[in-house]
Amino acid sequence: MSKKIFFQDIPKEVGKKIDLYGWVYSIRAHGKITFLDLRDHTGIVQVVVPPDGTHPTFSPEDVVHIVGTVAPRPEHLINKKIKTGTVEVQAEKSEIISHSQTPPFPLETSGYDIGEDIRLEYRYLDLRRQRMQRNILLRSSFVQEIRSYLVQKNFTEIDTPILTKSTPEGARDFIIPSRLQKGKFYALPQSPQQYKQLLMVAGFERYFQIARCFRDEAQRSDRAYGEFTQLDMEMSFVEQNDILELVEDMFTSIVKKLFPEKNIMQSPWPRIPHAEALKKYGTDKPDLRKNKKDPNELAFCWTVDFPLFTKQSQEDFFHGSGRATFAPSHHMFTSPHPDDIDLLDTDPLKVRGLQHDLVLNGFEIGGGSIRIHKPDIQQKIFDLIGFSKKQKQEFSHMLNAFTYGVPPHGGIAPGIDRALMALLGEPSVREVVPFPTSASGKTAVMNAPSEVTAEQLAELGIRIVDE
Amino acid sequence: MSKKIFFQDIPKEVGKKIDLYGWVYSIRAHGKITFLDLRDHTGIVQVVVPPDGTHPTFSPEDVVHIVGTVAPRPEHLINKKIKTGTVEVQAEKSEIISHSQTPPFPLETSGYDIGEDIRLEYRYLDLRRQRMQRNILLRSSFVQEIRSYLVQKNFTEIDTPILTKSTPEGARDFIIPSRLQKGKFYALPQSPQQYKQLLMVAGFERYFQIARCFRDEAQRSDRAYGEFTQLDMEMSFVEQNDILELVEDMFTSIVKKLFPEKNIMQSPWPRIPHAEALKKYGTDKPDLRKNKKDPNELAFCWTVDFPLFTKQSQEDFFHGSGRATFAPSHHMFTSPHPDDIDLLDTDPLKVRGLQHDLVLNGFEIGGGSIRIHKPDIQQKIFDLIGFSKKQKQEFSHMLNAFTYGVPPHGGIAPGIDRALMALLGEPSVREVVPFPTSASGKTAVMNAPSEVTAEQLAELGIRIVDE
Repeated sequence: MSKKIFFQDIPKEVGKKIDLYGWVYSIRAHGKITFLDLRDHTGIVQVVVPPDGTHPTFSPEDVVHIVGTVAPRPEHLINKKIKTGTVEVQAEKSEIISHSQTPPFPLETSGYDIGEDIRLEYRYLDLRRQRMQRNILLRSSFVQEIRSYLVQKNFTEIDTPILTKSTPEGARDFIIPSRLQKGKFYALPQSPQQYKQLLMVAGFERYFQIARCFRDEAQRSDRAYGEFTQLDMEMSFVEQNDILELVEDMFTSIVKKLFPEKNIMQSPWPRIPHAEALKKYGTDKPDLRKNKKDPNELAFCWTVDFPLFTKQSQEDFFHGSGRATFAPSHHMFTSPHPDDIDLLDTDPLKVRGLQHDLVLNGFEIGGGSIRIHKPDIQQKIFDLIGFSKKQKQEFSHMLNAFTYGVPPHGGIAPGIDRALMALLGEPSVREVVPFPTSASGKTAVMNAPSEVTAEQLAELGIRIVDE
Repeated sequence: MSKKIFFQDIPKEVGKKIDLYGWVYSIRAHGKITFLDLRDHTGIVQVVVPPDGTHPTFSPEDVVHIVGTVAPRPEHLINKKIKTGTVEVQAEKSEIISHSQTPPFPLETSGYDIGEDIRLEYRYLDLRRQRMQRNILLRSSFVQEIRSYLVQKNFTEIDTPILTKSTPEGARDFIIPSRLQKGKFYALPQSPQQYKQLLMVAGFERYFQIARCFRDEAQRSDRAYGEFTQLDMEMSFVEQNDILELVEDMFTSIVKKLFPEKNIMQSPWPRIPHAEALKKYGTDKPDLRKNKKDPNELAFCWTVDFPLFTKQSQEDFFHGSGRATFAPSHHMFTSPHPDDIDLLDTDPLKVRGLQHDLVLNGFEIGGGSIRIHKPDIQQKIFDLIGFSKKQKQEFSHMLNAFTYGVPPHGGIAPGIDRALMALLGEPSVREVVPFPTSASGKTAVMNAPSEVTAEQLAELGIRIVDE
């Protein structure tokens, strides 16, 4: 196999004989001549196959190898819609490397009208459609741009564990039985919240990670079942305004670069107090677009001045298990507003938290806060949310860490899937995730969850309860 | 809080009054004057505290805020060992933001002599030591360099699922009970092997990912318990030589940039057939350094021409469960050498596989292969390793995918932890992982695995077996 030429580079090869490797995208007969549109991950090129009797019969989606000469197209046949539209390749030799049977659904359409189950079962075909290729390539560019922006600003990328302990984000954990310590379980992280705060204690003042997070809660259009990805970031020695300014500057520069056709409606982004948002828009994630039908309008805003607490409900299984009065409206590490500290003792529901939510076109695409860094305040919050002695014990490592010199710190975690969904105007996060799970938790292509052997269960010291 | 000045930038501020935020690294009294070395994530700066009665009594590791004026140091007091050695800060006002009690172990040493259990329990302090800061910052730079190299070469970064199905990498899986489909389990991926092959079928011809992988197998110095990180990459329309050349060029350019003091002994890297390696060096991962005591020698080599199969052992619980004759020496998707196809029927142990192992200073830091892309060959391999009908069924999605136009493809997966360990000359991967688990599977800082509630188990439909 000779070095593969990327199709986007073919116009540079006019007059040369080249080897093409790619997929048959479409086939058109024109008299006795066959025109193939050939596809690779960089573009589409037209191949002219003469009726000389040496070429095989192609089918759509075959993987082929074609040797041919790059020729300029006559002026009136130039196709401005594709990058290689000024040229075509005159096939001399061709072979089918891998034949494709007929795909179970069309690949040249947007695919919105096809059932999600079958799209996920054949995701490796569904991802071939132009829209999905664009989404996944853009996703790659999006995270590269985020990384290069943050690295330039002196951020360090640090991975935190996936096998870890239950984290108090208010959702249900996925748990993993331990073989070495039978009867005990790891949990998958709902977010790296505690680790990122510990990294601040460790002196990595500017941390980020494109982090995988896990929540066993029902699927929605803006939330995939099971796992999602967030830009997790945290900074030391900052105030809330520093975080908001940095994130605004980052998103603004990335939108300019990757989505030049989109317009950010208002800049600087409005910062709306929570109470005002509820009063004026009836929601804490207002959609500030003027024309919701214009796909190029982007209306970012911040919601700030959230109440630190909400009333605890019976469903709050993590905090006071519904028996306490207050539950954190963000999470239990959010700092109260410094002006409201006294209210913690007198009227906790009036305390504002230093929380900030990032909203784009009516979607909450990120949330964060300035964190508590004083052990006595953290202790007080634990009491107010009704933590038992045992629950406090579970977080004693945080209180302990805070006794060794902890910097004031805060952060935010924009969701990658959700931000891309909103930026691209896609109807669901599953249109920007390569291999999403279905609503019932079934994985794409592979049929998981699945049964395991009795030996595996015995090794782990667990048993399935018969219903 | 004003915008924080990074300590590395202080020499630019001579004559100016600035705000410093950081940790007290060391304290020296000189007559009545106190000298503080203050630390942030970019460096160390000397602060001179006058005996004017307004300054607090500092302790090591306190987080402090100091207002002072940057002054040049007299010529004979310049400290060339630190970036800020030409200046010092004359403190005018100072406060302790967060006091530190005495750390449980010294932070100014290398830390090699301290017990690993206590280092992991207080990892947020252990990571403050200079060596660990350097390792973690270098790790961040290392993955950034990898990404920017690959993106320039037209690779797309694509995340694959963590909640997935058992993968046949020969180690024990971690499994996760499903709440929505009781009695069934997800598995954490031992590698993204199948997903990356499916991405080749999907037409993403050059894929990479800094991927988290999970194996429930015993800890070693070059293997952390539980999870590790690999650069997972795969390319379509390539031959083995293309992969080897690309990886060699990538590592060579990154070593030059990030480790300029290191010398690569031989270039191009030797490619040693497996049989020759065993005969000449007694191992398939030879250490080709001339002087093993020189910390700056890097000897890379490739091991190639592995046998496709080894004899199956009783412990092979994944393949034929010890009952078949042959087990894959790499994994079951590795392509046989095209010259040896006929031997599959006559003498399988003589078949060479298109496998390649990347070796650095005696450590296997990566392995990969050209994959099978023909369903009939894959089927034959399944038979030879003794797959049952049910096991074949578990991989039917791969065989099915291969009927829709699959490009020839191959890849490699260098371990990030292990490569960094070898590059830095660290004695264990745990010196380059931010929060590693202990040998017994206990997580750093947080005490997992831990007990879960009866309600959680009931929801998942499992029970702990009493011993």
